[in-house]
Amino acid sequence: MPQTSAGPQIEQLITLLSRLPGLGPRSARRAVLHLIRKKEGLLIPLGRAMNEAAEHIVSCQQCGNIDVRNPCAICAAPGRDQSILCVVEQVGDLWALERAGAHRGRYFVLGGVLSAIDGVRPDDLHIDRLLALASGSEVREVILALNANVDGASTAHYLGDALAKIGVQVSSIARGVPVGGELDYLDDGTLAAALHSRKSM
Amino acid sequence: MPQTSAGPQIEQLITLLSRLPGLGPRSARRAVLHLIRKKEGLLIPLGRAMNEAAEHIVSCQQCGNIDVRNPCAICAAPGRDQSILCVVEQVGDLWALERAGAHRGRYFVLGGVLSAIDGVRPDDLHIDRLLALASGSEVREVILALNANVDGASTAHYLGDALAKIGVQVSSIARGVPVGGELDYLDDGTLAAALHSRKSM
Repeated sequence: MPQTSAGPQIEQLITLLSRLPGLGPRSARRAVLHLIRKKEGLLIPLGRAMNEAAEHIVSCQQCGNIDVRNPCAICAAPGRDQSILCVVEQVGDLWALERAGAHRGRYFVLGGVLSAIDGVRPDDLHIDRLLALASGSEVREVILALNANVDGASTAHYLGDALAKIGVQVSSIARGVPVGGELDYLDDGTLAAALHSRKSM
Repeated sequence: MPQTSAGPQIEQLITLLSRLPGLGPRSARRAVLHLIRKKEGLLIPLGRAMNEAAEHIVSCQQCGNIDVRNPCAICAAPGRDQSILCVVEQVGDLWALERAGAHRGRYFVLGGVLSAIDGVRPDDLHIDRLLALASGSEVREVILALNANVDGASTAHYLGDALAKIGVQVSSIARGVPVGGELDYLDDGTLAAALHSRKSM
């Protein structure tokens, strides 16, 4: 049944937009009406930006980041520390760490985590490429920056073993109370991890 | 400060997407990563659909609906009752009524409602076009289907006066308990309206 009375083009646009994460049919309809109201300022530039992105975006063959160049801007940057490699699950995690500005080394995007439930096995991830990169003479330390859930933890365990075998130093980002966090609102697991990893002052 | 590490094209795409209602910077970033993962199935078709919409969509000069044809499919449909005109604020309201399939006449999109706070005066709406259309020999009844808030009510009052002067029958959609509504959860205004407009059984 059609959602609008505006013909198949608009129906198609709503159907495609409703497949984006965070949008459903209702919000996609609202978005399309907004786009049509702002045709010159938003609809046309957005269509153009999507075409350009589709045409130019590539996956970096070194780290798996996405960029318009290959190797990506981070891999190609001369000022970054080649000896520290930070492993993340997804490109979005790499972006988050870059926004934090806390890592001055390079990255490696694993492409997911091991998961018994979702049937993700080591061969489905870029583990071979990671081990090859970490075996290189430049890399001294690998930081595992995976999500703090069960799949992230078991993947970190698996990678830690494999990386230790090739003689590279492996670390994992800390777990504890997030900045601004109030103890009363935190879950038991976080509190236990924060207590366990306490630091002397 | 850049939100990603993927160059200006992706930054631009995120900025534009985050202007859609219901999306912010964070959900726009997630949406862009999703689009890039689904390049063939989503990003390219969506860019194409936006270009096509921008090229073909027009506002119907009779009713104000949007369509790829002018007059729109509803105004051009031979089977629809030309004697009943349903007035709505926005195109989205027209779509909602069409989905309900309850109105078999024609529509008129007012383009907004009178609002003292937002400074919307009668000249800012398509009231002249509505009065001209309603003066035509075919139109027998005008149904006001405006939102049930203060601005909608004052606009309905204004239109009711103006339409009564040209001798057309004017009605307004009913207010009452929505289908599936439970009295205990409804606001006082709705309950008062439902009591006031009670129907004998």
